[in-house]
Amino acid sequence: MPEETSSSHPFPCHGYAVHSASEPLAPFDFERRALGPHDVLIAIEYCGVCHSDIHQAHNDWGNARYPMVPGHEIIGTVKAIGELVSRHPVGSRVGVGCMVNSCRACANCLAREEQFCLKHTVMTYNDVEADMKTPTYGGYSDCIAVNEDFVLRIPESLDPASAAPLLCAGITTYSPLRHWKIGPGHKLAIAGFGGLGHIGVKIAHSMGIEVTVLSTSPEKEEDARTMGAQHFVNTNDPLALPTLHDSFDVIVNTMPVNYSLDLYLNALKANGVLISVGMPTQFFSLHPFSLQMKRRSLCGSFMGGIAETQEMLDYCGTHNIAASVELIKPDEINQAWENVSAKKARYRYVIDFTKDSQ
Amino acid sequence: MPEETSSSHPFPCHGYAVHSASEPLAPFDFERRALGPHDVLIAIEYCGVCHSDIHQAHNDWGNARYPMVPGHEIIGTVKAIGELVSRHPVGSRVGVGCMVNSCRACANCLAREEQFCLKHTVMTYNDVEADMKTPTYGGYSDCIAVNEDFVLRIPESLDPASAAPLLCAGITTYSPLRHWKIGPGHKLAIAGFGGLGHIGVKIAHSMGIEVTVLSTSPEKEEDARTMGAQHFVNTNDPLALPTLHDSFDVIVNTMPVNYSLDLYLNALKANGVLISVGMPTQFFSLHPFSLQMKRRSLCGSFMGGIAETQEMLDYCGTHNIAASVELIKPDEINQAWENVSAKKARYRYVIDFTKDSQ
Repeated sequence: MPEETSSSHPFPCHGYAVHSASEPLAPFDFERRALGPHDVLIAIEYCGVCHSDIHQAHNDWGNARYPMVPGHEIIGTVKAIGELVSRHPVGSRVGVGCMVNSCRACANCLAREEQFCLKHTVMTYNDVEADMKTPTYGGYSDCIAVNEDFVLRIPESLDPASAAPLLCAGITTYSPLRHWKIGPGHKLAIAGFGGLGHIGVKIAHSMGIEVTVLSTSPEKEEDARTMGAQHFVNTNDPLALPTLHDSFDVIVNTMPVNYSLDLYLNALKANGVLISVGMPTQFFSLHPFSLQMKRRSLCGSFMGGIAETQEMLDYCGTHNIAASVELIKPDEINQAWENVSAKKARYRYVIDFTKDSQ
Repeated sequence: MPEETSSSHPFPCHGYAVHSASEPLAPFDFERRALGPHDVLIAIEYCGVCHSDIHQAHNDWGNARYPMVPGHEIIGTVKAIGELVSRHPVGSRVGVGCMVNSCRACANCLAREEQFCLKHTVMTYNDVEADMKTPTYGGYSDCIAVNEDFVLRIPESLDPASAAPLLCAGITTYSPLRHWKIGPGHKLAIAGFGGLGHIGVKIAHSMGIEVTVLSTSPEKEEDARTMGAQHFVNTNDPLALPTLHDSFDVIVNTMPVNYSLDLYLNALKANGVLISVGMPTQFFSLHPFSLQMKRRSLCGSFMGGIAETQEMLDYCGTHNIAASVELIKPDEINQAWENVSAKKARYRYVIDFTKDSQ
């Protein structure tokens, strides 16, 4: 990105966009807005590749806006600030996650759960700003302008590249563990051991929780155990889940695809909770008795509020938790997307923009 | 029933059974077991007609055992007791609900949630005893022998006929309100205003909860308000539920049929809970985003433990809560079943055996 410090005019930005559901990512030049008094301009260094970037680009959820610049696991350095910005000095390392604004006035925003804003949670990409017309573009680009209240501090102890996935995958797995008060003494299963799942295992293990990984990739067992899982179950075995009936207090399901919900529900003890954090594209089907006969719950969780995201980053800084990543160059993203869909990621691809901008 | 007090031999019992999914109820003579040391023989005075009796008789859940004597909302008087029975003296008024035994040793039984027994919750009818072979027959009959630990005390302040439905409909709606700690300040909706729903409204109102009834029977509005509902929504109006998005903390869904789950889920606030207590016969379908985007939960609840059932009965005795019932004679049950399915019950049919046995 250019060496700008003025906030009086828009900033040129070089990124990567998809223009339709069937096209690959391609270079895309656009502008970031002139900085408002509370805006922070971030020179992006790293951006994680989330499975939902692929869903969104392929219009799997039916709400795609093109051109689309994906990316919501953003780490960078503050390059310029609006005149009233107090939280993030120029030169500090910061992050941006899945959202960049909200109404700040509704009950949910006041409860610090901006991800549930009753008016409009402005998503980092594939959305419009609060003006309801200016498109938002994400972190597959070399800079971004974000209101300071939606910019996170990155602990100095964390490697910035492997910290990037914390902004989505980290908070998505941390938040439900906190919300449902999961801790020592609980038996937790994490279903799916990919970008979300592997961070979930690290976080849960650090909290003293007994973790079982439920995975369709038996070759990941050693990694799962190294990262803190006490147990590993290969769910390709059709008898594996039925054998586990009434076993877990909580299952956090990170799989971004549909799965046999009743099998997972029945692996829960009475009063158990199945928390869906992956983003399947199709309807769930389940038998009411899977819930009713043991007073189980099927829940969904979606990111976390800004305050909780900062809490998670600070927690990860203290406990030295970050993603296991593979750095890629921007022109390798299309291949990385194919690898993610083929379950080949180990465990998160992170785009490195530091070479690009030199 | 005969005037027996001995426990040395089986007791003749006159009841009403279905012999296949397509036949109506017909008189059925059988025997109740000789009393074991902890057994109580109850002369049944009243038995409520629950919608699940109809589902079960028609084999809607695929697990019917014929001949089937339905009925699990039983009120009667103790006629004879085994030698070690201490809780229920002869002549006392007692009740029996949906279950008559459990293993008493598993984690769930020890947690006083016998309805979730990990070995075998013995259902009052359409099941087998702990010996895994002797069939259980329910309360559409003039007597029943039950282990004293699964027999409930009925407060003297309650009219026995209108107390009968508390044994299933009462505990089924009371238990989730307690479990999810619903109280003053919460906005509760009760979907379905039939046998379960109308008792749920009375109980919730007595707890100081703001109650909205969601019903497909607008002619019930006046009754609903009389029983304590502050609001009544006619859900036949296709715009009614969409207009209510983000409105309720909790919805207790008593409907025994499938419904558009996403519409109801989206009527919940962030962190809201939809508790299914009706017993639909088909699979649920829902979109994951209905849960995820506001961290909502879909839960099931199933009766309550014996201790909680006694607590509920004592609560209803103190607060003078019972069902609104219409008494029928045993030979009117088949017609009553048709009326229940046609939503004509106001609000619970209760079979009166007091005339039969004289």
